[in-house]
Amino acid sequence: MTEREDPYAVAGRPDPEEVRAARAWLSRAVEPGEADMHRFLCEHGPVEARRLLQAGVGPGDVARQAAARRAEGGADEDLVVAARLGLRLVTPEDDEWPEAQLHAMEVAVARGAADLAPPQALWVRGALPVDQAVSRAVAIVGARDATAYGVRVAADLAYGLARRGWTVVSGGAYGIDGAAHRGALAADATTVAVVAGGLQAPYPGGHASLFDRIAAAGLLLSEWPPDGAPQRHRFLIRNRLIAALAAGTVVVEAGARSGAASTARRTRELGRPLMVVPGPVTSAKSVGCHRLLQQDDARLVTSAADVLEMVGAIGDDLAPPALAEIRPRDRLEPLAQRVLDGLPSRAAAPADRIAVDAGVPVADVLRCLPALEMGGFVEQAEAGWRLGPAARADRRHGPPATVEGPR
Amino acid sequence: MTEREDPYAVAGRPDPEEVRAARAWLSRAVEPGEADMHRFLCEHGPVEARRLLQAGVGPGDVARQAAARRAEGGADEDLVVAARLGLRLVTPEDDEWPEAQLHAMEVAVARGAADLAPPQALWVRGALPVDQAVSRAVAIVGARDATAYGVRVAADLAYGLARRGWTVVSGGAYGIDGAAHRGALAADATTVAVVAGGLQAPYPGGHASLFDRIAAAGLLLSEWPPDGAPQRHRFLIRNRLIAALAAGTVVVEAGARSGAASTARRTRELGRPLMVVPGPVTSAKSVGCHRLLQQDDARLVTSAADVLEMVGAIGDDLAPPALAEIRPRDRLEPLAQRVLDGLPSRAAAPADRIAVDAGVPVADVLRCLPALEMGGFVEQAEAGWRLGPAARADRRHGPPATVEGPR
Repeated sequence: MTEREDPYAVAGRPDPEEVRAARAWLSRAVEPGEADMHRFLCEHGPVEARRLLQAGVGPGDVARQAAARRAEGGADEDLVVAARLGLRLVTPEDDEWPEAQLHAMEVAVARGAADLAPPQALWVRGALPVDQAVSRAVAIVGARDATAYGVRVAADLAYGLARRGWTVVSGGAYGIDGAAHRGALAADATTVAVVAGGLQAPYPGGHASLFDRIAAAGLLLSEWPPDGAPQRHRFLIRNRLIAALAAGTVVVEAGARSGAASTARRTRELGRPLMVVPGPVTSAKSVGCHRLLQQDDARLVTSAADVLEMVGAIGDDLAPPALAEIRPRDRLEPLAQRVLDGLPSRAAAPADRIAVDAGVPVADVLRCLPALEMGGFVEQAEAGWRLGPAARADRRHGPPATVEGPR
Repeated sequence: MTEREDPYAVAGRPDPEEVRAARAWLSRAVEPGEADMHRFLCEHGPVEARRLLQAGVGPGDVARQAAARRAEGGADEDLVVAARLGLRLVTPEDDEWPEAQLHAMEVAVARGAADLAPPQALWVRGALPVDQAVSRAVAIVGARDATAYGVRVAADLAYGLARRGWTVVSGGAYGIDGAAHRGALAADATTVAVVAGGLQAPYPGGHASLFDRIAAAGLLLSEWPPDGAPQRHRFLIRNRLIAALAAGTVVVEAGARSGAASTARRTRELGRPLMVVPGPVTSAKSVGCHRLLQQDDARLVTSAADVLEMVGAIGDDLAPPALAEIRPRDRLEPLAQRVLDGLPSRAAAPADRIAVDAGVPVADVLRCLPALEMGGFVEQAEAGWRLGPAARADRRHGPPATVEGPR
């Protein structure tokens, strides 16, 4: 594996423990998700960013937030408390940071999204490396006050995905979220709960034993320090992370004004496939689902097989050996190859442009792009999608030849 | 109203009663729907077509069919029996022929469809003129062995459409069809049952009293003579007529191998909006519905309002007075105006091309076209859609001016 580029690297890397302490401090001082803070952090690195914020310097809102919390300190203490609780802080400097998944957030910020910035750090409970846990993940989200129908469908879907080796990501809430986690656990599989608020006593308390089981089989993740309160606005911030960590999001039940709609929006904003399970039109808990399905870019799914058709189009053996006799793109299914052919040689193009050039419906283009991205064939750029390293190597070499596989 | 062009007119119109007798004979001798027969009929007119077929002359299949039935005769008798039963034969030569609705079939045949030809004639029970009965009509079709959920939804939908002045067209079958007719009747509205087989004892017999109520409030229609048997293949032929008579078709419940899928296909082939009501993914009776929704061109609907958004986008007051101070297109909703702007000045273009030029999603283009067609703004051609008389007049006159309204 080649050495990773680190977007936060600054000349003469500072002491790792100092970086970790700075990140811990930032996770308490500044709410995650804001593009201003992300740019500030990229520019100065965590240690200097902390110093500047403690001195009252920083982008408007961020400085004001940090000022209000400057006196609190507590970052070193957070790390001590975390260690005692069996938690750890995972940062972008760590190998297990889920960089590939979060890349879509970098792109969203570069495109101008104000509130889709990647996490500053992740508080984690569970033994699995984060990147490994979410390397093949689908999010299942939905209503808290789910119906028996929704609970059954969410659990079945999660079970089916888990049995096929996919991690189920959700928010740990009552209703659909809990059913999804339980379905994955029933298959003895990895499941990841991304919660709003700290991991010391994850919200909701009634799921304490479910959270224990999730941490034993997978991970609990939070962007807030261990004692962070599950404030209302944090759920909306959290939702972007659920969408980002998964190759696609499935909404199972959602009322007319459901939080699931926010995760759905984030999924679209991140360029990931949005999938929706329909229900009876007579059920108030399916109103939000049907509304999403009336929008062009949501895909109706009824089963784990339907979901995998959307997120797993390219199959399991995507990463070819370092030196392969056949070209990586030959492993792609025909539709994905056509989409790839629709990309310009150098520049980036939006999905609808690619659809026209490839002669493939936009919905199919959107379906193929995430998997092509995971295989290194395409990458997101400000203006859309461009060829990734695997595809560039491929085009350089022309007809079938011995080439390096995708990173 | 301008004089109608009659596609079947031949020089020196023959005696109307001779024409009617010829059409009655043809409706017994030749199965409807076949393009070969339609072209033969257009070329020779009904009287000469009958004479030729009786002499053994005609396109291969048609001549063979007619030969098998040549000896039967019975056409004059059919008209007598019909009169006694309170039925009448409506032909393309009659004022009440639903020419505007059936035009899409002419286009389909011109484009090469083998089995989408317009009816040769319609046997009718009910007092309403046919064209009037279907001038604003939506088809609701679905499974015979419907669930309680499907029956309820079909009836509610039909009731809602009927209350808003729309005719509900269906096939008179058990299950969804029956529920749709009953929903419309509950609103004291017009409903039309298009049955496979003759009207002497419409199939299924168990719906005899429902058929009586439908005929009293609306129409029973058949392409077969009064004693025609409801043969299996006739249901498939009949389905094209349900799709053609309605501005759009709604599928309520459909199993994995449902006849409703055939009506759905016909709807698409005729360029009409296909709408589908979802259901629980745990219900076998919604499997066919969800499959249709996974195709790009089916639209999820949950209510009468959703349906009218698809078929009634342009509103009720489309037909402007003969001389209007504002241009007809100013009455269109903004989306429909954009679609109209996407049409080339002279040539015809397919919907996806119009979508690109208008900068409007294909689904929206498909949604607007039928209503634009009804308003005379566009018309179907072999290569797609082109500007209709209303829009051409409009473009000729340039900026707002006094123009003739659409025909």
